[in-house]
Amino acid sequence: MTEATARRRGGGGAARRAERTALRIECARFIERNIPDVDMLSDEVLDIVEVNAETVLEEIGVAFVENPAALERWRLAGADIEGERVRIPRGLARRLCATAPSRFTQHARNPERSVEIGGRSLVLAPVYGPPFVRGQGGGRRYATMEDFRTFVKLGYMSKWLHHSGGTVCEPTDIAVNKRHLDMLHAHMTLSDKPFMGSVTEPSRAADSVEMCEILFGGLNDRTVMTSLVNVNSPLTFDATMMGALEVYAAANQACIVSPFIVGGAMAPVSVAGTLTQVLAEVMAGVAYSQLVRPGAPVIFGAFVTSIDMNSGAPTFGTPEAAQITYGAGQLARRMGLPYRSAGAFTGSKLPDAQAAYETANSLNTGLLSGVNFMLHACGWLEGGLVASFEKFVMDADQLGVLHRLAAGVSADDEAQAMDALREVGPGGHYLGCAHTQRNFKDAFWRTELLDYKPYETWEEEGARDTAALASARVQRLLAEYREPEMDPSIRQALDEFVERKKASMADAFL
Amino acid sequence: MTEATARRRGGGGAARRAERTALRIECARFIERNIPDVDMLSDEVLDIVEVNAETVLEEIGVAFVENPAALERWRLAGADIEGERVRIPRGLARRLCATAPSRFTQHARNPERSVEIGGRSLVLAPVYGPPFVRGQGGGRRYATMEDFRTFVKLGYMSKWLHHSGGTVCEPTDIAVNKRHLDMLHAHMTLSDKPFMGSVTEPSRAADSVEMCEILFGGLNDRTVMTSLVNVNSPLTFDATMMGALEVYAAANQACIVSPFIVGGAMAPVSVAGTLTQVLAEVMAGVAYSQLVRPGAPVIFGAFVTSIDMNSGAPTFGTPEAAQITYGAGQLARRMGLPYRSAGAFTGSKLPDAQAAYETANSLNTGLLSGVNFMLHACGWLEGGLVASFEKFVMDADQLGVLHRLAAGVSADDEAQAMDALREVGPGGHYLGCAHTQRNFKDAFWRTELLDYKPYETWEEEGARDTAALASARVQRLLAEYREPEMDPSIRQALDEFVERKKASMADAFL
Repeated sequence: MTEATARRRGGGGAARRAERTALRIECARFIERNIPDVDMLSDEVLDIVEVNAETVLEEIGVAFVENPAALERWRLAGADIEGERVRIPRGLARRLCATAPSRFTQHARNPERSVEIGGRSLVLAPVYGPPFVRGQGGGRRYATMEDFRTFVKLGYMSKWLHHSGGTVCEPTDIAVNKRHLDMLHAHMTLSDKPFMGSVTEPSRAADSVEMCEILFGGLNDRTVMTSLVNVNSPLTFDATMMGALEVYAAANQACIVSPFIVGGAMAPVSVAGTLTQVLAEVMAGVAYSQLVRPGAPVIFGAFVTSIDMNSGAPTFGTPEAAQITYGAGQLARRMGLPYRSAGAFTGSKLPDAQAAYETANSLNTGLLSGVNFMLHACGWLEGGLVASFEKFVMDADQLGVLHRLAAGVSADDEAQAMDALREVGPGGHYLGCAHTQRNFKDAFWRTELLDYKPYETWEEEGARDTAALASARVQRLLAEYREPEMDPSIRQALDEFVERKKASMADAFL
Repeated sequence: MTEATARRRGGGGAARRAERTALRIECARFIERNIPDVDMLSDEVLDIVEVNAETVLEEIGVAFVENPAALERWRLAGADIEGERVRIPRGLARRLCATAPSRFTQHARNPERSVEIGGRSLVLAPVYGPPFVRGQGGGRRYATMEDFRTFVKLGYMSKWLHHSGGTVCEPTDIAVNKRHLDMLHAHMTLSDKPFMGSVTEPSRAADSVEMCEILFGGLNDRTVMTSLVNVNSPLTFDATMMGALEVYAAANQACIVSPFIVGGAMAPVSVAGTLTQVLAEVMAGVAYSQLVRPGAPVIFGAFVTSIDMNSGAPTFGTPEAAQITYGAGQLARRMGLPYRSAGAFTGSKLPDAQAAYETANSLNTGLLSGVNFMLHACGWLEGGLVASFEKFVMDADQLGVLHRLAAGVSADDEAQAMDALREVGPGGHYLGCAHTQRNFKDAFWRTELLDYKPYETWEEEGARDTAALASARVQRLLAEYREPEMDPSIRQALDEFVERKKASMADAFL
């Protein structure tokens, strides 16, 4: 039913109001793929990459910077330590990785929203990290906590988004040492979907765990956060990120160990070379998480873009990025680890055609390459510098396409439709036949955004482009937003925790 | 080298002029896939579809309308004829299809531009059929012969486009019974890429063959046209299209036998049901081409979209269309026939984000589903009602992505980049290392359209969106266009043929 027909059938204002009160916030279950993964790279190429990655770990090694405890863990495990360089004998890292689970549950406070990460699943989470926002009448501007809350609300209202994410934008109006408290508070109270913890300081990771203990009434080793631990590529693990990983692994919280690579800058300018480095980095990081706590949930991450060799700008939705995403997925499956990659990536400054080409290229690659956790699945703009309100709802709509594709194709009696073929025959049409009447409501994925109107209607309504339609949809979703219910005592405890923590520190903006 | 650096290095006006004179029109060779096809549907589903398609042919049959000769051919082949209904015994159609080649060459007048259709190849051709054009400062308006020529020139200048296509737009200012002559003349003289023949009347197909005999100095059974023969779905073969097919098959010219389906209207509202009908229709059409001339080159076509059940509008880039495209590709491979499907499809009225999402979804599906001939690979807008100048160059740029993806991933010594990994090590960067210096020029696909500039530069230059960048590119390509050389006697003979034919008929607009 379109909005227009809903309005007509609704009758009057009273009916419309009743409909709004009864509004149910829909949320799709995480995707369970019923389609094959695409093995884009040959086994021969993957074999070479695996051998070379072991050579990298053994001969070149990785650096664990300003982290004597990590060096000691590695020494005890059998690595060769020289200064901060850790050289890992062939096979050791992979053996250590074997205790990491191939699949785990991330619990949400609303149990219906809990997600499985690994195996055949695909969990979709929004954009992460932009210092700027764009849209809703304003141009590009620094993000604020109010913008952050708006994105959390949009995520909660987005049917195809399974996860509330983490730093959906950087709330630059809040002190750096306090903003994680406000961000977590927003995810916990404005949404009931699962979320990510802070990684900018080990103490902030500890705060995240503590707030989750309040929210969930104790954790008992349940995994309730999946957090993003970037590798400082090439081959470097800094103390901040590793400190956060140590806190999370110890508490059985999930981390994504994610090389952050602009190909040609942080990795070799070739697909096989980049995959070699990605694999070496992930093996070292995942192995380290298992040294902290064997069995801690962890994800094989790969954030990889190519580079424009003229301007040095990172480029998105490119074929080389797709090849690496496919290859890393194959490597992750060979290790039996959940896989994070892809997203609604683009280098464009606007939610225009470039943004959509690049995004669609990457979303399709993500689905087919076997990604289990897709961060940045909506809202990303301008190489990740900008979170866009309009692009958030545009991408979120396209995520419905992935759900439908992943479901695969049925050939049960009803899907075979032989009764329809017999009923209609040569030269007829199927619009009114019995099979169509039985099935049309669910036959096709339906956009909640894109324009399919007759040309004349579209023109009369202002000849709006996708960005204009998206702007209207953002307004509608925010107007319809209702905060999910929460036990008042938990809410009070969270409020007090944040207040107390904030009062205990002076503001710091570094 | 960007345009900007080219300009700087060029020095002055003289150098720039020299550069323009020396301009070489680049054209990529057709794609030979070095990547696996994606078998999205299970063998079990395909088995059912194949059994059901035979049941459709045997029990329901197909209609060959107003075509007694066709009915007689079918009767002689062993089909059961009742009125215009042709019921084909189980297995007969598939057996007849076996004489069709799995791969053929379509020759171009410039032998470097000849294409192989079938096997691992992918040949890209532009939009076909729109009565309207949009862009270049004007809104939506009826297409003219001048627009047609502009699109042929743009196609000739588009590096990633292998084929000049057919009715790139309908030249509505030329009489219906004469426009095929002008269209073919334009493809033959303004481009040297392969092209399509007329199918709107058997006599116009015969004109197309005759003009090709002039252009190529006799054909001697060489295939020099690939033409689009739509099935009047469901299950109906009309005399016009079949008449054209008869002319082409007899002359060993290739036809695409292409069900034209808006799912839910011309086929059942399910993927398996639609595939069943597609397969039945293609088998009947291909079999018929082999009755006309065993061995005639022919392509398994599938033009399939879903429908918006609210408005009745066809919808594009949807997951159900993708599933059908994948499934039809698998069915075509099981028959050993070349496959035509996918394209730069969209329902959007503008070259905006909707257009690009839908297009990218379909282009990616086309590559991965094993399409061998992709019509509509650039320029399509508004459900095929409109050919857009801007979208033509936007899509044509994205076709470069497909080339690169299709090439696959190398793991030779240079691609392994172990020297780079050893040279750089932890914490370094690869921008200046020897491996990067050796490889950066060809390391990554490069757009000739999209924006990667720094934010401030982009803003100073007018904060242009993709459509605005595309508009500038259209102007640049047309300014750089030079007609390919042609033997003056052939040119004269073509001119005279068109003139004579036109003079022989009164204008008809039906």
